[in-house]
Amino acid sequence: QSSVTVYGRLNLTAERQKTDAGSVTNLTNNSSRIGFKGTEDLGGGLKAFFLIEHGFSPDTGAAASTFWGRESNVGLEGAFGKVRLGNMGPTNAYFTTADYISMHNHDTGTSSDAFYAYPGNAKNMIAYTSPSLSGLVIDAQFGLKEASATKNTVVLTGNYDAGPLHLGGTYLTGPGEAKEFGLRGLYELGAITVGAYYIHNEADVASVTVKRDIYRVSGMYALGASEFHVNVGAAGKAKALGIAADGSSATQYTLGYNYNLSKRTKLYGYYTKVNDGNLGAYGGDFSSIAAGIRHNF
Amino acid sequence: QSSVTVYGRLNLTAERQKTDAGSVTNLTNNSSRIGFKGTEDLGGGLKAFFLIEHGFSPDTGAAASTFWGRESNVGLEGAFGKVRLGNMGPTNAYFTTADYISMHNHDTGTSSDAFYAYPGNAKNMIAYTSPSLSGLVIDAQFGLKEASATKNTVVLTGNYDAGPLHLGGTYLTGPGEAKEFGLRGLYELGAITVGAYYIHNEADVASVTVKRDIYRVSGMYALGASEFHVNVGAAGKAKALGIAADGSSATQYTLGYNYNLSKRTKLYGYYTKVNDGNLGAYGGDFSSIAAGIRHNF
Amino acid sequence: QSSVTVYGRLNLTAERQKTDAGSVTNLTNNSSRIGFKGTEDLGGGLKAFFLIEHGFSPDTGAAASTFWGRESNVGLEGAFGKVRLGNMGPTNAYFTTADYISMHNHDTGTSSDAFYAYPGNAKNMIAYTSPSLSGLVIDAQFGLKEASATKNTVVLTGNYDAGPLHLGGTYLTGPGEAKEFGLRGLYELGAITVGAYYIHNEADVASVTVKRDIYRVSGMYALGASEFHVNVGAAGKAKALGIAADGSSATQYTLGYNYNLSKRTKLYGYYTKVNDGNLGAYGGDFSSIAAGIRHNF
Repeated sequence: QSSVTVYGRLNLTAERQKTDAGSVTNLTNNSSRIGFKGTEDLGGGLKAFFLIEHGFSPDTGAAASTFWGRESNVGLEGAFGKVRLGNMGPTNAYFTTADYISMHNHDTGTSSDAFYAYPGNAKNMIAYTSPSLSGLVIDAQFGLKEASATKNTVVLTGNYDAGPLHLGGTYLTGPGEAKEFGLRGLYELGAITVGAYYIHNEADVASVTVKRDIYRVSGMYALGASEFHVNVGAAGKAKALGIAADGSSATQYTLGYNYNLSKRTKLYGYYTKVNDGNLGAYGGDFSSIAAGIRHNF
Repeated sequence: QSSVTVYGRLNLTAERQKTDAGSVTNLTNNSSRIGFKGTEDLGGGLKAFFLIEHGFSPDTGAAASTFWGRESNVGLEGAFGKVRLGNMGPTNAYFTTADYISMHNHDTGTSSDAFYAYPGNAKNMIAYTSPSLSGLVIDAQFGLKEASATKNTVVLTGNYDAGPLHLGGTYLTGPGEAKEFGLRGLYELGAITVGAYYIHNEADVASVTVKRDIYRVSGMYALGASEFHVNVGAAGKAKALGIAADGSSATQYTLGYNYNLSKRTKLYGYYTKVNDGNLGAYGGDFSSIAAGIRHNF
Repeated sequence: QSSVTVYGRLNLTAERQKTDAGSVTNLTNNSSRIGFKGTEDLGGGLKAFFLIEHGFSPDTGAAASTFWGRESNVGLEGAFGKVRLGNMGPTNAYFTTADYISMHNHDTGTSSDAFYAYPGNAKNMIAYTSPSLSGLVIDAQFGLKEASATKNTVVLTGNYDAGPLHLGGTYLTGPGEAKEFGLRGLYELGAITVGAYYIHNEADVASVTVKRDIYRVSGMYALGASEFHVNVGAAGKAKALGIAADGSSATQYTLGYNYNLSKRTKLYGYYTKVNDGNLGAYGGDFSSIAAGIRHNF
């Protein structure tokens, strides 16, 4: 009778974290979630579908502040592509770049991309995804400003897949003067996968436009049930009024190891380190050594 | 092993809304929800059952302020009827009148009944529903005042079904001097359905009893997968201390069109307009033109 | 595809409650809940599993303040036992003593153990459960203090089952000077079950260690679908700085009757009374006469 699928992920790490203020041992949530989704066949190649997804912290049992903030939308799919209404969670610009590249742990937790900045609004969205056009999928998202924001959000992305090669490009313009564009490439070479992105970001800080370039490269080597990961990112200097701020750049690197007990369950560990600039744009230096379990359901 | 059914509805419209303050384009939630329910056969015609239902806004992902506020109850059903304990969500007086008549979109969102007033309390309830007595079903709900309210809530309703004819009557007395009674009729004439209700409402405002009569008529014409709807309501003048307040009456009309892609999924649009009186008892004039999708699961 | 089990319990009573301040008729929640759990077979005797459990009040529809506060964890199980990470809800010291003995209504609601005190922290836990060693199961729980607590929590329990005999012992040391140890026995003698526990508790109140002993005995007589219950508890005098405080002791007794409509569903009633000491350590005298329904799903 009911065609609802319950799915999700619990992902916890025990971590030794170090900041400028000292060290602490934490149990840390890595974007755990539970969701409900379903599809209805309407005939003639047309489908209706919905998806709602809730984020929570299994270490404490706390729900995310916006309960269905990860995603909540409904739409139609057919030969024309896919139309969705609702809250998309992160924009497709994020999925096309930061999320795509950070393979070692779904870009979650303390080893997630410390520099990716999201200037837009994925709530109150009308979104269109094209069918695959010889490997190219175009995605257009339109976020209504409604009464609270000053400007609508527009997100355009293209994702191109040709065998081992995966390319993506993004353009985003959001509330205020926020703007972002990005390019991403990923290549699968047998047991080795390498990827990289470049993002240019502009945000409005107290009526001044602050510009920044972000770079990240990542690599994975798979050997049986094991995966060896490396992930390195850099945030260039923040530029405002034509001046680049000394001490505002930062770097991050992560070394990770995953042992896949199955497709759904892995044990893993990593070491991540953020070297922040003197200005502390990213909250100061941070490092963590972590071991944990991820279980999909 | 588990006999739980997951069910729900996502219902979103893109709307151009106009108030006295100006116009705005919104993605609007129309009482989206997800629920869990189950039944256990106890033998001898006896069943136990439960139902919990959660409301949320897929446009933003926000949960309703009372998480299981739409409904959360448990009970027994047998030849004697049905007994339930818990939170009933709206009282059966609402389901018998306002909800029953506003057919075009489940009495949800901006085209919902702007004048229906609920003076009672559906939490902490003990409720009894009779079996069908030659088409008549009696429902009695008793809401405990507990420590916070001044008076228990009593809701009595009768619903009578005889082929194309559907009649309902309600009586409600709640906290303070709140009182309500209503009558509703609905008739199915082939492709045409027409319905109407009359409600008399009394509420306690700063120790003064304010009385008001509310009227609503609605009609639907079904043609294949299409439904054409009209819905017109009027709130009479508010009367206090024997005096009817000029400028306190209001009218609302809605024109709607539904295209049923299936029993579960429709695309639809409507125009609704509230003409409020000078006193602004209903928040001032309001209109909205809307297009959306409703998907049940 | 999905291997998730939805389970839970709705448990409501209509109660006449009496405190020093007067009497009130309430619909009362008895730890109602809904949970999601699943298991994945990893081969070689190894399993991954998760469980998240949410508490709510069906009388009002309100969610617990920590949404998944009842339990949220993930782990692995094998010949070595079970390892879990996350929020355990109550510690295993509670399940081994107070929860184990109060059989008449799952130690929930107004007839739950009024004196059991939990000094620890079950969040941010790493837990190990041994396999059964000739009937003995050892459980060790380690709760990280993280940045907010002053001390890690350590919980050690042993549960021994030998036919009709069930023994348990607990040791807990938590934040501040909190400490607890307990012993529990339960014996099944045909239709009769009798149980008892003794707990010694130490808590830190404004830098002074307050010690207290708690005792509880319970008995059940089963006759067909009926169960007759008695449950008596006593809190000894609170002792601080070597002095036992007069008027700080209290007693509680409960008489209960359950009628099992099935394994999942019961109708029941009870009378419970707390005789608090003059110091009102447990909020003053309290009694309740209750009738209700519990439905597991």
